[in-house]
Amino acid sequence: MKLGFETIAWGPSGGVRFLDQTLLPEREVYVEVDSIAEMVEAIQALRVRGAPLIGISAAMGLVAAAGQQASRVTPEWIRRAVSDLGTARPTAVNLVWALDRMQSVAEESFRSGAGPDEVIASLRSEAQQIWDEDVRMCEAIGAAGETLVPDGATVMTHCNAGALATGGIGTALAVIYAAKMAGKNVRVVSNETRPLRQGARLTSWELARAGIPVTSIVDGASAAVMARGEVDFVITGADRIAANGDAANKIGTYGVAVLAEAHRIPFYVAAPSSTFDLSLTAGDEIPIEVRAGEEIGAAPGADTFNPAFDVTPARYIAAIVTDRGVLHRPYRKSITEALT
Amino acid sequence: MKLGFETIAWGPSGGVRFLDQTLLPEREVYVEVDSIAEMVEAIQALRVRGAPLIGISAAMGLVAAAGQQASRVTPEWIRRAVSDLGTARPTAVNLVWALDRMQSVAEESFRSGAGPDEVIASLRSEAQQIWDEDVRMCEAIGAAGETLVPDGATVMTHCNAGALATGGIGTALAVIYAAKMAGKNVRVVSNETRPLRQGARLTSWELARAGIPVTSIVDGASAAVMARGEVDFVITGADRIAANGDAANKIGTYGVAVLAEAHRIPFYVAAPSSTFDLSLTAGDEIPIEVRAGEEIGAAPGADTFNPAFDVTPARYIAAIVTDRGVLHRPYRKSITEALT
Repeated sequence: MKLGFETIAWGPSGGVRFLDQTLLPEREVYVEVDSIAEMVEAIQALRVRGAPLIGISAAMGLVAAAGQQASRVTPEWIRRAVSDLGTARPTAVNLVWALDRMQSVAEESFRSGAGPDEVIASLRSEAQQIWDEDVRMCEAIGAAGETLVPDGATVMTHCNAGALATGGIGTALAVIYAAKMAGKNVRVVSNETRPLRQGARLTSWELARAGIPVTSIVDGASAAVMARGEVDFVITGADRIAANGDAANKIGTYGVAVLAEAHRIPFYVAAPSSTFDLSLTAGDEIPIEVRAGEEIGAAPGADTFNPAFDVTPARYIAAIVTDRGVLHRPYRKSITEALT
Repeated sequence: MKLGFETIAWGPSGGVRFLDQTLLPEREVYVEVDSIAEMVEAIQALRVRGAPLIGISAAMGLVAAAGQQASRVTPEWIRRAVSDLGTARPTAVNLVWALDRMQSVAEESFRSGAGPDEVIASLRSEAQQIWDEDVRMCEAIGAAGETLVPDGATVMTHCNAGALATGGIGTALAVIYAAKMAGKNVRVVSNETRPLRQGARLTSWELARAGIPVTSIVDGASAAVMARGEVDFVITGADRIAANGDAANKIGTYGVAVLAEAHRIPFYVAAPSSTFDLSLTAGDEIPIEVRAGEEIGAAPGADTFNPAFDVTPARYIAAIVTDRGVLHRPYRKSITEALT
């Protein structure tokens, strides 16, 4: 699938080069960063976003920053950098998952007596591997999920779980891309996803680029569109999935899942193995990021409440599409079997 | 209830003076219009909006325009003006309801041999009466609905059904204002209401002015806020209610009603008698305005679908608060008894 843009890449001068997603769709601007502070800022400001992509970005950012100051790279420097990157955003588990891998590699490397340059080389190799694995997980999600897509389907999605959210062709949108590559006609209804409009700005942008018909609606219109009988299924990404299948994703996802059930429309979640957090027994243990009220923009004198994510209980999820196949209820069993 | 602003008024030079709601909350600008074309533009651009208010605005606009060109006011001029105003927006029945009254008064006046000045005087009197009645209907809705509000309640609302939507203290918000005047503590969760953000811009603005605690959330957050167990009931306005109780209201209302049911939260509709359309047996007969996709603002190459309203089936509505009391199911019976 030729998408015609590069969500993330190694920059020519050793930094991490990425498409600044806050400027889409108006402007396609690539930025290169090579410090921990810059990468933390990029993650917090959502210049790079999407659970798999922020894991990859953090891993690559660690390498780029280490490369800039090789002589100062000690176990303590790594611990501090991993801590700063890992707390940039709390909800997506892929961030700490990727950084845990990086930290282990660094520790192992130091323990074997490696010098800074060798440690950095091993970190670069691990970051590349995390990215490469994500590309393959996206492909595998697409291949597994494509079987769920009838020819001529209209699919609703919320937020962006596409090529802009991963190192590859996406998670939820991988299913769409795979269906198209399999020769099926498929059309997408893209929920706007306030406050930051990732659906209208990003999902619509990448699908239109890929030549997939996409209709942008406001979040409030999703129920009316479902009631018209036009939606065959809903599929979204996830930022963290607990051991029982409860899935945190962008604010609004839970409501869409409840509405899908009321309209007897299957609601699917698509996510790579890196999104599962088997240390959590249920979704109420997932930390939910609450962002600044300015993102909403209310009248003076009004309070705001701006949670960036919500949790969809497993009972609303008809299937979870992963790189290890399509999982069904009971999720505690199917997730454990697939991941361990 | 002193609200400190005038949604609509007769202007000093005989026009209709109104608060331009497209500029709130940033700027509080009053505009005076005295032609049919200007009033049609104001209604279509949502400078004045809210089902009861556009009925009043159209009636007053007809008077102002007639006053500007008294010599040309013939039965034909009236018919044309009523037609232009009446088709400005299709969904709210209050618009044609008010204009039907104006047309009948004009016809009666012409029939009795009145000259233009007398016809205009009778129209001015009728427009004032429509406005005065709306003020009283708002008060009556508040008095009837206030009994539904527990002390310390948290109430969710969608769009704006307040003083900015009527000639008086509102419909859904009249219930809130009446509860406050009765000495109850009440707090409001205001859904943003994309695409035009009447919740964040208008409801939050007028409630904050009235000293009522209000929290602005994006539409996608309403399900998560309900799941936190913080919402005692939902109340919205309506633009047209069919004989069976199905209610058209701002896009997103239907979804909120479905979510309220899923969380066992009562969902109420508040509306004056002028909002009922007994000529329609069910909500699927209500014409739904579809507005320009630019209001959503999607990426280039993406299609848009931007219905301004949706229909909430009566089965989701726990009660309809009217100026004739609180109506319960079966609505075909309770509505007929209350209105005829």
